[in-house]
Amino acid sequence: MPSSPEPGSDAGGPDSIGALAEQAVLGRIVSRLPAVPAAEVGPGDDAAVVASPDGRFVVTTDLMVHGPDFRLAWSRPDDLGWKAAATNLSDVAAMGARPTALVVALAAPADTDVAVLEGIADGLREACAALAPGCGVVGGDLSVSRTLTIAVTAFGDLGSRAPVRRSGARPGDVVAHAGRRGDAARGLALLFARAVDGDDEPDRGRAEALRAAHPDLVEAQLRPRPPVSAGVDAALAGATAMLDVSDGLARDAARIAAASGVGIDFDSAALGAAEGPTVFGAEDHGLLATFPADAAVPDGFDTIGRVTDDAGTVSVDGASIEPVGWDPYEDWNGVTG
Amino acid sequence: MPSSPEPGSDAGGPDSIGALAEQAVLGRIVSRLPAVPAAEVGPGDDAAVVASPDGRFVVTTDLMVHGPDFRLAWSRPDDLGWKAAATNLSDVAAMGARPTALVVALAAPADTDVAVLEGIADGLREACAALAPGCGVVGGDLSVSRTLTIAVTAFGDLGSRAPVRRSGARPGDVVAHAGRRGDAARGLALLFARAVDGDDEPDRGRAEALRAAHPDLVEAQLRPRPPVSAGVDAALAGATAMLDVSDGLARDAARIAAASGVGIDFDSAALGAAEGPTVFGAEDHGLLATFPADAAVPDGFDTIGRVTDDAGTVSVDGASIEPVGWDPYEDWNGVTG
Repeated sequence: MPSSPEPGSDAGGPDSIGALAEQAVLGRIVSRLPAVPAAEVGPGDDAAVVASPDGRFVVTTDLMVHGPDFRLAWSRPDDLGWKAAATNLSDVAAMGARPTALVVALAAPADTDVAVLEGIADGLREACAALAPGCGVVGGDLSVSRTLTIAVTAFGDLGSRAPVRRSGARPGDVVAHAGRRGDAARGLALLFARAVDGDDEPDRGRAEALRAAHPDLVEAQLRPRPPVSAGVDAALAGATAMLDVSDGLARDAARIAAASGVGIDFDSAALGAAEGPTVFGAEDHGLLATFPADAAVPDGFDTIGRVTDDAGTVSVDGASIEPVGWDPYEDWNGVTG
Repeated sequence: MPSSPEPGSDAGGPDSIGALAEQAVLGRIVSRLPAVPAAEVGPGDDAAVVASPDGRFVVTTDLMVHGPDFRLAWSRPDDLGWKAAATNLSDVAAMGARPTALVVALAAPADTDVAVLEGIADGLREACAALAPGCGVVGGDLSVSRTLTIAVTAFGDLGSRAPVRRSGARPGDVVAHAGRRGDAARGLALLFARAVDGDDEPDRGRAEALRAAHPDLVEAQLRPRPPVSAGVDAALAGATAMLDVSDGLARDAARIAAASGVGIDFDSAALGAAEGPTVFGAEDHGLLATFPADAAVPDGFDTIGRVTDDAGTVSVDGASIEPVGWDPYEDWNGVTG
């Protein structure tokens, strides 16, 4: 909806998106995104056309919103694009599918420099190249908004296999996990403790220094590397249930437990911990899967527990735990940074 | 990213999304959305699985952002859901495809009453039922944001036909159009003129009175009814090029002209006007298509011009016109209402 005949009053500098026409901004972004093999029609028409040789496609969508999901003082633009792609690729992988393509809808304040959007495009490209080679951006939308928002929708192909759902775990299955356990939460705790100024406001300089000193933990939070190809490996190995661990092992195990009508019991020795970020930390985007007891658990997965018949429960070494975790509606304090 | 251990300070009333857990909000929304025949796996897992019998799927994504795209004083929540669905369904139709499914990512301020989200869900459902029966919502995401944002991604099936692109128009083709011409812009002009208070701020009471007096024009803007099924009809009739008219006939004709290397000449007698909203008004979401001269233009399309060899031009009765239109980056004045 055009709001009024007047041009934008908060248009920013000459390279801000408020000062450039939509086509000019799109041109600068699309040129950074390589063609995607699965795309019969790519960006530039009313819609894209994407191959789905399986006759079905997997689709997931996830928003990243300035405020609840990121701080501009902590994340570089390419980190934002990377994380937006990575979290969606992980959801595709969690169905046992191979990611084929993304579409990206982006809304940014009118005074945003186009270099920020170019950085986001770079991060989208880099994450696809690193985590799901051949996958890339086939279309999108750009809009202005007071709040920088990145909406990624990702697609995958199942290669004639059944999707691996949350509901297929059976008592006696082994529980296995691929990816980091707790490092994204440890990185976030570091950022909250040490990448803020005297008023507890996010601080860019301190975040950069912290990242240089602890790249592993800080990047686990800002630029996660989910084990995307492990999703297909798990499906081929006969995984009975699987999901992307976005809200912490405990909370996400409870989702498999509820959907499958089983219990999940973790082995603290295999986990290396019985509590803390390892069990409750969010945003690692690992894959939690269950396999029949006689299956060969694929490389990249650690066996960390077993499926019990104690329906709906999550436990560590047999002792029930509360499946708490991060809820964006309950926990955001309104700070944007 | 969890922002801090403190619960949200701007959580609103007991039925606000800030006061309810994400699962509770999701439950209230998903219950309003019927199952979709094309969905092998619907909402509730990491991703949905959607049938694509053609072995390809059409995909488009579009954002609606509070401020540049709508006023809460003018649009009811169900209008927002309706329009978000309708504009995406129209993009699918413009490829000559039948819409099969949507995914919806929604971000709203924490103090938003869940009834607003339920209204948006109702509008999504109603638009699919009215414009593309069988299509519906198969998945989504919910987040908090300072800015109410609706990101819809829509899918379609081509039924083994080639997609109808913008680039296939040939000199001698006829130009035809299905849908409204200028009424969305006329409705918007009415709203700006008469649905504001003494300070030019959007006013809910005046908008309701205006809608009662001029339902046709106001609803063309707030609750458009694009001719979605005409997209497949056009493809079956041999359309050589087609697009969704979102930015006005002149500007969108220029896109076909540029992509096809042709000219588009409108017949003012067939249009009923040579200028004004009929030619330049945005957001009608009709379908502009070109057909071979010997094709039977399908019911629902009006023949309104012809394709010329004057590459890249748009004209009315042979007189060139400037393909101006609405650019969200250039034209938003920052008002939200």
